[in-house]
Amino acid sequence: MTTTDSIEILGRRLRLGMIGGGGESLIGPVHRLAARLDDRYDLVAAVLSSNGERSRAEAERLGVPRAYASVDDMLTAERARPDAIDVVAIVTPNDTHVDYAERAMSRGFDVICEKPLANGLAEARRLSAAAQKSGRLLCLTHNYSGYPMIREARAAVVAGELGRVHLVQVSYLQGTLGSRVEDDPGRMPGRLKWRLDAARGGPSHVLLDIGSHAHQLATYVTGDRVASVLADVGAAVEGRSAHDTASVIMRMGNGARGTILASRAASGSDNRMSIEIYGDKAGLRWEQSSPDLLHVTRTALPAEIRAKGLASLHPLARRASRAPSGHPEAFFEAFANLYRDFADLVAARIAGIAPDPLAAHIPTVDDGVAGLAFIEACVRSSERGGWTDC
Amino acid sequence: MTTTDSIEILGRRLRLGMIGGGGESLIGPVHRLAARLDDRYDLVAAVLSSNGERSRAEAERLGVPRAYASVDDMLTAERARPDAIDVVAIVTPNDTHVDYAERAMSRGFDVICEKPLANGLAEARRLSAAAQKSGRLLCLTHNYSGYPMIREARAAVVAGELGRVHLVQVSYLQGTLGSRVEDDPGRMPGRLKWRLDAARGGPSHVLLDIGSHAHQLATYVTGDRVASVLADVGAAVEGRSAHDTASVIMRMGNGARGTILASRAASGSDNRMSIEIYGDKAGLRWEQSSPDLLHVTRTALPAEIRAKGLASLHPLARRASRAPSGHPEAFFEAFANLYRDFADLVAARIAGIAPDPLAAHIPTVDDGVAGLAFIEACVRSSERGGWTDC
Amino acid sequence: MTTTDSIEILGRRLRLGMIGGGGESLIGPVHRLAARLDDRYDLVAAVLSSNGERSRAEAERLGVPRAYASVDDMLTAERARPDAIDVVAIVTPNDTHVDYAERAMSRGFDVICEKPLANGLAEARRLSAAAQKSGRLLCLTHNYSGYPMIREARAAVVAGELGRVHLVQVSYLQGTLGSRVEDDPGRMPGRLKWRLDAARGGPSHVLLDIGSHAHQLATYVTGDRVASVLADVGAAVEGRSAHDTASVIMRMGNGARGTILASRAASGSDNRMSIEIYGDKAGLRWEQSSPDLLHVTRTALPAEIRAKGLASLHPLARRASRAPSGHPEAFFEAFANLYRDFADLVAARIAGIAPDPLAAHIPTVDDGVAGLAFIEACVRSSERGGWTDC
Amino acid sequence: MTTTDSIEILGRRLRLGMIGGGGESLIGPVHRLAARLDDRYDLVAAVLSSNGERSRAEAERLGVPRAYASVDDMLTAERARPDAIDVVAIVTPNDTHVDYAERAMSRGFDVICEKPLANGLAEARRLSAAAQKSGRLLCLTHNYSGYPMIREARAAVVAGELGRVHLVQVSYLQGTLGSRVEDDPGRMPGRLKWRLDAARGGPSHVLLDIGSHAHQLATYVTGDRVASVLADVGAAVEGRSAHDTASVIMRMGNGARGTILASRAASGSDNRMSIEIYGDKAGLRWEQSSPDLLHVTRTALPAEIRAKGLASLHPLARRASRAPSGHPEAFFEAFANLYRDFADLVAARIAGIAPDPLAAHIPTVDDGVAGLAFIEACVRSSERGGWTDC
Repeated sequence: MTTTDSIEILGRRLRLGMIGGGGESLIGPVHRLAARLDDRYDLVAAVLSSNGERSRAEAERLGVPRAYASVDDMLTAERARPDAIDVVAIVTPNDTHVDYAERAMSRGFDVICEKPLANGLAEARRLSAAAQKSGRLLCLTHNYSGYPMIREARAAVVAGELGRVHLVQVSYLQGTLGSRVEDDPGRMPGRLKWRLDAARGGPSHVLLDIGSHAHQLATYVTGDRVASVLADVGAAVEGRSAHDTASVIMRMGNGARGTILASRAASGSDNRMSIEIYGDKAGLRWEQSSPDLLHVTRTALPAEIRAKGLASLHPLARRASRAPSGHPEAFFEAFANLYRDFADLVAARIAGIAPDPLAAHIPTVDDGVAGLAFIEACVRSSERGGWTDC
Repeated sequence: MTTTDSIEILGRRLRLGMIGGGGESLIGPVHRLAARLDDRYDLVAAVLSSNGERSRAEAERLGVPRAYASVDDMLTAERARPDAIDVVAIVTPNDTHVDYAERAMSRGFDVICEKPLANGLAEARRLSAAAQKSGRLLCLTHNYSGYPMIREARAAVVAGELGRVHLVQVSYLQGTLGSRVEDDPGRMPGRLKWRLDAARGGPSHVLLDIGSHAHQLATYVTGDRVASVLADVGAAVEGRSAHDTASVIMRMGNGARGTILASRAASGSDNRMSIEIYGDKAGLRWEQSSPDLLHVTRTALPAEIRAKGLASLHPLARRASRAPSGHPEAFFEAFANLYRDFADLVAARIAGIAPDPLAAHIPTVDDGVAGLAFIEACVRSSERGGWTDC
Repeated sequence: MTTTDSIEILGRRLRLGMIGGGGESLIGPVHRLAARLDDRYDLVAAVLSSNGERSRAEAERLGVPRAYASVDDMLTAERARPDAIDVVAIVTPNDTHVDYAERAMSRGFDVICEKPLANGLAEARRLSAAAQKSGRLLCLTHNYSGYPMIREARAAVVAGELGRVHLVQVSYLQGTLGSRVEDDPGRMPGRLKWRLDAARGGPSHVLLDIGSHAHQLATYVTGDRVASVLADVGAAVEGRSAHDTASVIMRMGNGARGTILASRAASGSDNRMSIEIYGDKAGLRWEQSSPDLLHVTRTALPAEIRAKGLASLHPLARRASRAPSGHPEAFFEAFANLYRDFADLVAARIAGIAPDPLAAHIPTVDDGVAGLAFIEACVRSSERGGWTDC
Repeated sequence: MTTTDSIEILGRRLRLGMIGGGGESLIGPVHRLAARLDDRYDLVAAVLSSNGERSRAEAERLGVPRAYASVDDMLTAERARPDAIDVVAIVTPNDTHVDYAERAMSRGFDVICEKPLANGLAEARRLSAAAQKSGRLLCLTHNYSGYPMIREARAAVVAGELGRVHLVQVSYLQGTLGSRVEDDPGRMPGRLKWRLDAARGGPSHVLLDIGSHAHQLATYVTGDRVASVLADVGAAVEGRSAHDTASVIMRMGNGARGTILASRAASGSDNRMSIEIYGDKAGLRWEQSSPDLLHVTRTALPAEIRAKGLASLHPLARRASRAPSGHPEAFFEAFANLYRDFADLVAARIAGIAPDPLAAHIPTVDDGVAGLAFIEACVRSSERGGWTDC
């Protein structure tokens, strides 16, 4: 804790209101845990069901004092309170993100929004404009950018340790859709149903669900954008209509070559995500299965393994860990890093001070817009079978 | 959440008071984070310094409403309140654990105590007797027993998957004391100073600090005790007086052979901990660096890798994870599992119901007593150079 | 050794003549070692230089009894001997393979040819026709198909363990060309010079050098062909004219999706090669850095690690290992498996018997033709930016 | 190849005679392959059976020109030939090594002997004296000392990269004897039968079979000796009489602490061997399952992964590899390194020149004597339950 801790300066925890995330939601509990982990939020309000009684019962179960039956109820009632919520967390299905976020920001709330930002680029851009107009902040929970060693990678690229980046490869493989699970809807979890439904989950399931993470990671670590794509998007599993697999060749803004491979049809793969980046001086490799390590490869020299918690890391990485090296940190801590950084930014805004610049490395509405631009370019490229600009 | 969730039945979170853990404490923040993670505790009272003003300032910084300047102040004042704390967490130096725990339990508080339970077996036994007399519960935070795949290992042994266990090997290597850091006390963290001081940190630094973890893990997974030891305990680094390395050959209660190797002089090793257990049917291997995986080895057959979160795991392991397989969980989640299980046990006691039997797999005062018996046997064995019963 | 060992039936080792591979050649010594490893060949003749004296000196240094100064000299002289060579090994630069192989086969010699078969598809097809006409055999040394666990993978696919294969991903990353090494030709090894020279090394360096391996591996394990490609081939390193990186999206004959990523600009990557294959029942993953292991992933079940040497493997894999599990076999043994299998096939032909069917799983002229078709399709696809049939 | 290559100077390959290694021998084929791999030996004579006809048939099958029915026959007949063998390889059961080696050396042959050198210290010492008297060389095939990265480790210790070595840990786990396989002798391979028979395989199976490797590795890498041991040796599997497990605490000559853990009862473990060495500057870790890598750990700094084949390695390591980094080398290549180095030493002796000093890092009769001293000290220590000098 230093004087740059905005929450300490503000003198209180932030008050959080949550939309969605009740019932059998998988991501709702993750957001709540992430919010609690560093003790910078009190979850004081929630819309957990459109049925008032159910919302209240669920809120009571979760220990949330103020339950609402609709988003407008919450935003209106809270706006009127002296102890109003500061931040709204949106953990509902994709198709509602833009609407809820717009409404919350227009009434002066900062927003934490589950990814993807939207199901389409047009609405993402609309939200971006609304966000700018509102003067409020939005954190998009691309949680991989919260891992300490991903931040080390980003800092290493900025520091020029790789030289000119010329090759970027991201791979994200899951096995959830390895066979035709949709043929037995009775055994599918509800969250998978709406995700596979194009109306709610968006036009390209694999790209919105995990391709968006891969794209964000590629741009986060390189500090560059994806300029154009040559893509093949569709179903690997025979007879499936939803997209389960996307193979994307890309060109970065600086001319670097790259690929993003994302599939949910990789039977038995447990969220295997990796990123490799190569420049003319050195390379970096990170795998989610060993998240505390970052491999630095160097031509004709031994590789170096940087480990989370080492004092020799870049400040951006050191800030993102809570325990010494050898005490592994993982998914929830990475997620919580986004919540913590966002708390710093929001508290600084409220307190009228400048936040710690290291808190500003979280995904924002801009990442969401870039992600949707990438996704739509991939789909178009796949349809026409040629290079497409993002 | 099911009807076996005692906290839900009790209808409120537990109230927690903490002794120690302020200032530059490493383990204090870990306990607070673990307590918050599953939302079953409110940290409402604390003794963070023997200086009243400092205790208050620190409590305010941490958002703890009630600050006390001494353990007795806290125990007395809280006892008198209608909203008294339920549980006392002790995160002070080793030499104070027994005294504080005894006082807390004798006044009716349940206790979470940082390991080791004590610096010596005699006082550990005294505490055990006091605990039994008090009817209160004690959780000893040997956090490795909170890892989902360690629980899978324990359940696999119980289920007979290994056959008769005949070989147990635990290794715990750290690099903190790889050279004579004590020659430059100005650069040593305070917590290392008291640990290397025999009066406060106990007679055998390496055994109390990490050997105790290794012993607890061996007994936790096998469900057996260490019966006798043949040990070599001392300093690997030349000219050091404190013990930095312990090599222990052991015989388990069932006759199985085994070893425990613990060293803090393994330069550059980041908390490398592993356990391997072999029976006449199969073997198990777990490494802290990949905590979500458990290797099951089988004679002349392919090995199996069980991953955290799989539906095919034993219930004891499934209960201990919060996210699907492939989303890594780690140090803090393991630690939090102990807090969560303990909350279930304490809430059940208060509510007068039977707790979920799966909550009862946490380390207790008995683990502490067995650990001290092991440590003292190792020291005696090392001094006389022969087998010694625990 | 069983009665299916053709060499035993033939009653003598095969006599081998080698073209190229002297001086500072990297691959020459590999072929000689592979030929020796299982004691099925005597290297009795060689063309190691076009300078007669140099060829003789080099042959003497290598212990090869009969030195020739030209390919025709060797083929003519050997044809006339009662103890003529049986097999010609060709380890010269790419642009000579077809010519030498044609001449050798037309005079009745069987041929082992270093990959790629040719620099272009037209000449590869010409050689294929010539080979068929000659009745002689050709082994193309795509050595990855000699690894025991690659053979296990092939056998597992054939046995239906994966169900319908729907996703194939191969990656092959090297760091040799991570920066502009060609700017300092004085420090480049000679073999790199001719490879980067399009006239000798062919029109697409990365595809001919390592992409051909990746393609062969994908088809070898799946037993399928690459039907069409969407590719991006060029130089990742700025200012380079030779191709150092190829990203290829593909569709297999059965409709499966896939990718092949090959780069020699992955600074610090030491020949990182991996293949992953997924079907609707299970998946397979192999990495060259742990060549003795094959991961079998299964939806919602623990993964299985099959290890080289286990009795439970498929016969095709068991045949390919020489030591029990846990005694690692690697690059040279894989290479030698091709030599050994080819010896079985050739000896059977000479002896007029049927060879062991398990010996017939080596890469042939057909793999070479398919590889060149793939490479040319990739180049065309990259030029026109669209899908191209192979 | 340089002028330091004694074989090139000698101008011919060495002639090798082999004792044992026919039939279903596991290690015989390994020696023959290792001898062939670098083309420095011709296997021209062998005693493959005491039955003359069987010996001849087996020799013919293996392509060995001169078959003998007894060791004396071979030694006498060869001694009389102008093209006599230079080197005798002994690959018979343990109890015959000393006798055969003595006879061979006394008649002027150099010897390659399979480990262990003997079943007891007294006979090992007798052989050592005989060897010295004979002026002939003996290579003991502790093959782990042939791995390039083990040689890098040895060179790194010599170069002082670790500072003062203070901790050494070796572990060698196999699963072959994980259950009572000896209860079904009909299914046991013959080589396991004589090894478990104390008369032929020696008094402590696990120590002679794999403990001897672990001991040799510890002394090879540190360049130090084991001074004293505190050991527990016996059977982990209930009801077994042979030793299957040895746990050894040790003190090195320089005072360093250490352990050697060896078990053949680790069900499902495939030859898991590792060595870790720590000094006050840095540490080293090597695992046989990734033999091409050496981890260098450094306090508070990133670890370094040195890979086989890198130009930055010590000359001793570079000499021991045949292919660039990323092309894995393994068990057979390590074994062959011993044969190759020994060829250099023997050829130099014959040619009357000084050998390449880097060839002199192979295990010799001294390693055998030290190994037996270690083994006997372990057994004595285990019997009396106390520290015992080696």
